[in-house]
Amino acid sequence: MPKLPDPLIAELAAVVGAAHVQTDDAFTACYVSDWRRNFPGAARAVVRPGSTAEVSRVVAACAARGVPVVPQGGNTGLVGGSTPDASRREVVLSLDRMTAVRRVDPLDNSMTLEAGCTVLAAQEAAAEAGRLFPLSLASEGSATVGGVVSTNAGGEQVLCYGNTRDLTLGVEVVLADGRVLDALGALRKDNTGYDLKQLFIGGEGTLGIVTAATFKLYAQPRKVVTAWAAVRDPQAAVELLARLGGAVGERVTAFELIGRQALAQVLAHGTPGMRDPLAGDYAWAVLFDVSEASALMDPSPAVEDVLASAMEQGLVLDAVLAASGQHAHDLWALREHVPEAQRLDGPSIKHDISVAVSRIPEFITEAGAALEALVPGLRVVCFGHVGDGNLHYNQSKPVGMPDAEFRAREEAIHDTVHAITARMQGSISAEHGIGRLKQAAFLHYKQPLALELMARIKQAIDPANTFNPGRLLPHTLPAPRPSL
Amino acid sequence: MPKLPDPLIAELAAVVGAAHVQTDDAFTACYVSDWRRNFPGAARAVVRPGSTAEVSRVVAACAARGVPVVPQGGNTGLVGGSTPDASRREVVLSLDRMTAVRRVDPLDNSMTLEAGCTVLAAQEAAAEAGRLFPLSLASEGSATVGGVVSTNAGGEQVLCYGNTRDLTLGVEVVLADGRVLDALGALRKDNTGYDLKQLFIGGEGTLGIVTAATFKLYAQPRKVVTAWAAVRDPQAAVELLARLGGAVGERVTAFELIGRQALAQVLAHGTPGMRDPLAGDYAWAVLFDVSEASALMDPSPAVEDVLASAMEQGLVLDAVLAASGQHAHDLWALREHVPEAQRLDGPSIKHDISVAVSRIPEFITEAGAALEALVPGLRVVCFGHVGDGNLHYNQSKPVGMPDAEFRAREEAIHDTVHAITARMQGSISAEHGIGRLKQAAFLHYKQPLALELMARIKQAIDPANTFNPGRLLPHTLPAPRPSL
Repeated sequence: MPKLPDPLIAELAAVVGAAHVQTDDAFTACYVSDWRRNFPGAARAVVRPGSTAEVSRVVAACAARGVPVVPQGGNTGLVGGSTPDASRREVVLSLDRMTAVRRVDPLDNSMTLEAGCTVLAAQEAAAEAGRLFPLSLASEGSATVGGVVSTNAGGEQVLCYGNTRDLTLGVEVVLADGRVLDALGALRKDNTGYDLKQLFIGGEGTLGIVTAATFKLYAQPRKVVTAWAAVRDPQAAVELLARLGGAVGERVTAFELIGRQALAQVLAHGTPGMRDPLAGDYAWAVLFDVSEASALMDPSPAVEDVLASAMEQGLVLDAVLAASGQHAHDLWALREHVPEAQRLDGPSIKHDISVAVSRIPEFITEAGAALEALVPGLRVVCFGHVGDGNLHYNQSKPVGMPDAEFRAREEAIHDTVHAITARMQGSISAEHGIGRLKQAAFLHYKQPLALELMARIKQAIDPANTFNPGRLLPHTLPAPRPSL
Repeated sequence: MPKLPDPLIAELAAVVGAAHVQTDDAFTACYVSDWRRNFPGAARAVVRPGSTAEVSRVVAACAARGVPVVPQGGNTGLVGGSTPDASRREVVLSLDRMTAVRRVDPLDNSMTLEAGCTVLAAQEAAAEAGRLFPLSLASEGSATVGGVVSTNAGGEQVLCYGNTRDLTLGVEVVLADGRVLDALGALRKDNTGYDLKQLFIGGEGTLGIVTAATFKLYAQPRKVVTAWAAVRDPQAAVELLARLGGAVGERVTAFELIGRQALAQVLAHGTPGMRDPLAGDYAWAVLFDVSEASALMDPSPAVEDVLASAMEQGLVLDAVLAASGQHAHDLWALREHVPEAQRLDGPSIKHDISVAVSRIPEFITEAGAALEALVPGLRVVCFGHVGDGNLHYNQSKPVGMPDAEFRAREEAIHDTVHAITARMQGSISAEHGIGRLKQAAFLHYKQPLALELMARIKQAIDPANTFNPGRLLPHTLPAPRPSL
């Protein structure tokens, strides 16, 4: 018996054009699953509106029929927040046709882009105007403006410029009834009521669909001093960061910690020519950038000064300053190759945690001891943005342990790491958000009162649970307890 | 007939001690009216809890009886947001006994303070740890941590360090049922759900009572280059700011525009010894600071470079760099004396507006022409934080106009300025918030959908309207329109 035509499809086609409403699995494949294939799904349709007005009408049409809408940007998130479940009930609303740069204003140091612009395109639009858009991610070629706003993406320069939230001056949002909230203004100061945009930044598409955003722009650095330093231990790394900040101020644009295990995997699995920047198997190293916007000033002497006194006092054991752009690039390549090297090394378990910067050493000590007790021989691959208190605290299986045995311990390892993180008032998801992947841990570790307030806000803004149901907050929201 | 004892008073006394529950008008006078005496009020009681636990029990007791609670910090706000109405029904909850510095962590560059700490005490706590807390306000000796968080205070260094929102890493909040939301963590990155603290920052005490906050700290500047420059016009001021930023990056810590009328009033009513920094009656001047954290770097040559080329091109007409700390202090004294000089000059009308920085010149031209047409001879006193797009765009009465006639035009002048601001997607309250003073304009100019969302949030978080009823949002909230 032939399938009856879906009336919603015809309605959506009337809004965006038949070519932009797809139900054919061959076409929808890249929209219904994330690239790690952790959350294979199937959509009732993939709709690709070309304007905010079309997004508004698509949402209204779906909401009127009680059809859930899953907003999608570059689909580079890794937590199952931007793909449909397997029910074929959900409509994927992709912003990938909305790529306009609406305005770039170098005098105001701001720009307004549509949600489908990639982060790379955003960087290029700013650069053409002689300015810097400082958001920088591994996925920047595919990740989109709407996606980074909705997930409050972090990246490599948060230490100096902040997360996406800090870079966002305004947003345009389509609500669950199709109405459009225009909060795109480029204001640096505005105290007229609650700052509504903050709910949609990092809201994971559960409260509204971000269709455009206005961002801050910055001065382009003219010189970057890059250094690789072996440090006594994580405590020395944190102290070095504080000294560096005290000596050069807010110019420290990146400060990464790299444990020996991470470097060893890179050297074992890396590309030809990769080698340890320093002689001696130091247990811990930091890689940092100090950037300078002025052509008339050079931070190198101040950086050398800090490193020299830190060496005298035993915080730094050895260090090298990049002698050229190529040298700096080679040093960063070691850091950026860590995830790939760990993949090549075999099965691994990943965590994306944060604690107060000053508690990083305590975290590494406690978690390391707890994991060794849990799984003797477990190899901790510890690296990340220590300047933000954010570690990619990963584990590779003990040498010789069968994969299945390692996988069997995965939950216990997650629990151990997350419990220590929570005890230290840390975050179990510093960068990647909750989506579906981290919901169980989120519900377990977040303060119940905070969860209740989030549920009340979701009910206040999207009462029919039209947007991204079951992502971030569970399908059935806890009933709000009466306030009195 | 003797007044019956108020059972609530006894209940509150049992929580905080009788000495800290006051109903005597002589004592409560400074709590029930702002210092401009624009909103004289009378409280059922002024309660001064000594701890978060006491705040929690006081709020629960008031809420249980349906008694409105008006949270109060330093009571330096000027919009009627922190004082009771005249009904004697409202309880003022003052945080002025909660002044503990809970922690200062120079390695983490953060500190946690209780709500009653003054901004000055916060600056001092940071300085003792060798760090900078960059929030700086005229009222910093009285304004409190809880107050600046609840009003998202701005001040003099927003251009570089942001508003209070940008400085706030975490908050502790007592909700309307007395429960305590603990979001005090010092995390630089945390993507676990909606960022709840953002609702309480700038919430004007309508959603919860901020009892403590965690702030970011920064490096202390070792050198500040201060310059006073006469500029061709406001457009030249904006272009100079952009060039300065391009040349020295994010080191421009203040950039103020000062119109001739403002300077003339200062010179007419100023303290002995105050004089025009430059010969020649230039119509517009800017006063700016460029700060440097490094002892090994001096931004002066870069600043001189920018000023020199700006003079060649006619943007800058004349300029002077402060030759000493005293000289810099004298230049800033001119700027800081403007409000007092305007008061001494006679009746005035004030606006606290913001637009995109690049639209400042357009705003000044349009508003100036509209006001001259409305009230010929009106003297526009234009000055403020042009680097933030924020002008204190004030008016003094035409020479010889009777005060009564000037006052009679006040509403028309407000409407003219606010209408132009709104047409330029600006803010009618950049720094001071809404409270009661600006509620009518807020309700008139804010997008209705934004007002509706704010009302839904208020109902979701404080459904009984216990906190600051009638401030920011009106007493009777618009009924939320069903989302579908």
